[in-house]
Amino acid sequence: MIKRRSGPVRNERTHQEILEATAQLFALGGYDKLTIEGIAQEARVGKQTIYRWWKSKGDLVAECLIAGMLLPDRLALPNTGDIRGDLHRWLTEIFRIISEPNTEGMLRSLISGAAENPQIGARIRESLIGTESITGRLKAGIGQGQNLYEGAPFDHIAEAFVGAVVLRVLSRTPPSPEDATALINAIIGPAPPTLRSPQ
Amino acid sequence: MIKRRSGPVRNERTHQEILEATAQLFALGGYDKLTIEGIAQEARVGKQTIYRWWKSKGDLVAECLIAGMLLPDRLALPNTGDIRGDLHRWLTEIFRIISEPNTEGMLRSLISGAAENPQIGARIRESLIGTESITGRLKAGIGQGQNLYEGAPFDHIAEAFVGAVVLRVLSRTPPSPEDATALINAIIGPAPPTLRSPQ
Repeated sequence: MIKRRSGPVRNERTHQEILEATAQLFALGGYDKLTIEGIAQEARVGKQTIYRWWKSKGDLVAECLIAGMLLPDRLALPNTGDIRGDLHRWLTEIFRIISEPNTEGMLRSLISGAAENPQIGARIRESLIGTESITGRLKAGIGQGQNLYEGAPFDHIAEAFVGAVVLRVLSRTPPSPEDATALINAIIGPAPPTLRSPQ
Repeated sequence: MIKRRSGPVRNERTHQEILEATAQLFALGGYDKLTIEGIAQEARVGKQTIYRWWKSKGDLVAECLIAGMLLPDRLALPNTGDIRGDLHRWLTEIFRIISEPNTEGMLRSLISGAAENPQIGARIRESLIGTESITGRLKAGIGQGQNLYEGAPFDHIAEAFVGAVVLRVLSRTPPSPEDATALINAIIGPAPPTLRSPQ
């Protein structure tokens, strides 16, 4: 606060500091308790500075999401070439996150924010939990599941996976260790006979 | 307000009137704008009367849901014995509801409420959109889809359908007429060859 920064650099830093303040406060108290006033205080800027770039806290949270500042890398789908194994690791990790009180509340708060703000909702679907990349991964896994065939509705398969996870968060039904396998079998079907390990 | 009703009957009526006021206000303004004060005013009771039975507006909304007062019958899965056809009619109807500004906002508001209140979340999953009955219907449709076989994870298949719908509402992605078929193929697989109509 002592040195005066030059215009564009100062703008960029302030912009970034506001996003960081948002992410920090979101992680602490969730979407509901987030206020423009609190963010302004945390980032040491005036509320007007925030309103210059963002219309609402929803827009701010959406930009944090886009910037990957809100959710742990743990939510990314691994890529080993074995789609069933990757989906299993991914879902197991997500189910673990859902079972942790802190992150579970954060995810729930994010869903609540998505219900209020279109940009957050669009992000959750498009890139947050990675629907697009999931779609690509599913395409690469053709033949590794009953429902993974040339021309299958990969977008909708991805939507079913992400949707089932969102529903789990909403319904606060703690996933069991068997849930990951069951969900995979439910959506892409049981492993084809040729891929089954010998009994 | 002129006649004094006798105890139990009065209680039952008041209880019902409060629920009806809640459902009415919810339909008008959604979960966010719902207040105990507004409900009390609408039902012509004191706030204390409401707090005698319910802890929060979330609990009230949950009871309305359980009582079937919040969502149209249109959300029920039809039952003609043809599971693919029934799922298609059901999803087409849900996608139509999602595309209507009023009901879309109501569903979104309900999801927001679910994120805040465990009972609503549990209801959405268990009985609201009818996961249990969907599970039963899927079981009865064994053989009508690649993923409908003896011992299939029917609960998780139902979860995938309901989850995908919830995600659609959240992401405000308007469904296209082809989405119902694509989602069915994505989850229970394309129709088995024996069921396909001749080209």
